[in-house]
Amino acid sequence: MADNRAIGVFDSGLGGLTVLAAIQKKFPHENLIYFGDTARVPYGSKSRDTVIRYSLEIQEFLIKQDVKMIVVACNTASSHALDEMRRKNNIPVLGVVEPGVRALTNNYKNVLRAAVIATKSTIKSGSYDAAMKEVNREIYLYSKACPLLVPLIEEGFTDRKATEMILREYLDEIIREDIHYIILGCTHYPLLKSMIERLYPGIVLIDSSIETAVMLEGLLQTHNINSDSGYRGTMKLFVSDITDSLLDMEKLFFGGTIDSLEKITLGW
Amino acid sequence: MADNRAIGVFDSGLGGLTVLAAIQKKFPHENLIYFGDTARVPYGSKSRDTVIRYSLEIQEFLIKQDVKMIVVACNTASSHALDEMRRKNNIPVLGVVEPGVRALTNNYKNVLRAAVIATKSTIKSGSYDAAMKEVNREIYLYSKACPLLVPLIEEGFTDRKATEMILREYLDEIIREDIHYIILGCTHYPLLKSMIERLYPGIVLIDSSIETAVMLEGLLQTHNINSDSGYRGTMKLFVSDITDSLLDMEKLFFGGTIDSLEKITLGW
Repeated sequence: MADNRAIGVFDSGLGGLTVLAAIQKKFPHENLIYFGDTARVPYGSKSRDTVIRYSLEIQEFLIKQDVKMIVVACNTASSHALDEMRRKNNIPVLGVVEPGVRALTNNYKNVLRAAVIATKSTIKSGSYDAAMKEVNREIYLYSKACPLLVPLIEEGFTDRKATEMILREYLDEIIREDIHYIILGCTHYPLLKSMIERLYPGIVLIDSSIETAVMLEGLLQTHNINSDSGYRGTMKLFVSDITDSLLDMEKLFFGGTIDSLEKITLGW
Repeated sequence: MADNRAIGVFDSGLGGLTVLAAIQKKFPHENLIYFGDTARVPYGSKSRDTVIRYSLEIQEFLIKQDVKMIVVACNTASSHALDEMRRKNNIPVLGVVEPGVRALTNNYKNVLRAAVIATKSTIKSGSYDAAMKEVNREIYLYSKACPLLVPLIEEGFTDRKATEMILREYLDEIIREDIHYIILGCTHYPLLKSMIERLYPGIVLIDSSIETAVMLEGLLQTHNINSDSGYRGTMKLFVSDITDSLLDMEKLFFGGTIDSLEKITLGW
C-alpha cells in the first residue's frame, strides 16, 4: 500500500530549502510541504525554550496538513526540539544533526579530528558532540559558533572581502587545531562552500543535506510509507511572513519549481 | 495631580535601551517599563503586516501593566505601526522617527542635503521621507538600508576591519552624493558612531534618543501626566526570550541599574 501523504519539512527560515532540494531530487514522486518561519527567523541566537516552543507549534501545523513524517531541516531546531517533538506525536521525525555526523563518518574513514561550525544556539546545545559520541567515540570534535555567517549569506555577501575576513576570524582557530574536516552545521552554510575551499585549500566540507535524504529513504522503508513511484509529487511552500528576501532566496536555493506559496500566522 | 503610572518603552530587542537610558537620564523620577521582543528580533527584515501585529501585541501587554504612555524605541516599529497603535488605544504613543528628523532640523540650520541609514523595513516604509516632508520640505533626504549593521553590533564587531569594509560599502554612496549629515535611523547604530566618525572625518551623525526625550517632555506636559518630582523612579525590564546576549547587551547599553527582569511569552 502506497502512502501518498506529504513529507513535512521545516526550517527557521529559508535555509532549509537546501535540504528540501536534496529530498526532492532523490524522491521526485513524494509530495512535499515546506514551512519556513520567516516571521521569527533566526532561531540561532534564541534560547532552547523558545526554539522548542516554536518547533512544537510548527509540528502542530504540519500535522494538521496530514503529513506522514517530518524532517527538521534546521540545525538549531534539530539540536533542541527533536525529543519534545517525538514525545508529542507518533509520526517519524528526522533531524539534520545525525545525518551531518554520519556524512562525515560514512564517507571519510580514519578521520580522528573534525570540527563543526554552526549557530550559537546549536553549538551551545552540544547536539553534535552527543551525536558524534553515538556514532564514533574516537573522533575529537571541535565546535565553533559562527553567528555572522547567516546574516552575511542572507544579504548575498557570499563574494565579499568582508565575509572572507569574518570567515578567517572564525575558521583560523580550527585550522590551528590541525583539523581538515568541517561539518557545515547550518543549512545556510553550503552557500559559502566555494569561498571556504578557496581560502583553505585541502579542507573537506561536510554537508548534511544529501545524507539527510539517504536517512529519509531508510525511514520511509522502515515505516512502509513510500508513495506511489509512478506519481509526480507536488511541492507546497508555507511561510509565516512574506518578506522582501523571500523570492530572492527561493530562486537562490531552488529556482521556481514550487507549486504553491502561502502565508500562515502562528502563535496569535 | 501627579501621575505615577509608568512610561512604557519597547523595542524589537535591546537596541532601544539607548532610548531608555536617555529617558531615564532626563526623567529620573519617572517609573519605566521596557519590553524587548528578543524571541522575535530582528524586525528590520520583516514585513509591514508582521511588524504591526507584533507591535499591537506588545502594546496590549504594556497597557495591562497600566502604563500612562508608550514610547516606540524601535525605528522599524515606529515606521509601520504608530497609526494602528494609536487607533487601538487612547494613551499617547511616541515613535523615534519624528524625533530623529527634528534632531537634524532643530540643531543644524541651513542643511539642504541629509541621509538616513536604517534597516530594510524602515527604509522601505518611507517613514523618514514622510516625517521630513512634514517638518521641512526643502531638505533632500537620501535613504540607505544597512541590514548587516545590527548583526555586527550584536556580535560586538564594533572595532573590526570587516565592519569598516561593510560600513564603507554602505556609506561611500552617501558621501558621493555630497551629503555630510546622517540620521542614525536605528537604535543600535549609535554604537558605531566612533567608527563612522573616524572613517569619515567631518561627518555629522544625528542620534534620535536625546530628541525623543525632549519630545517626551512636551507630551508629558501637554497631557498633564508628569510623576511626582520628588520620587525616584523604578525601571523594569521585560523580554520575550532570555538569550545569551541579553546580559551582555544590558551591560553594554545600560550598566546594571535595572530593578527587575522578567520573561514574558507573547502570541502563544
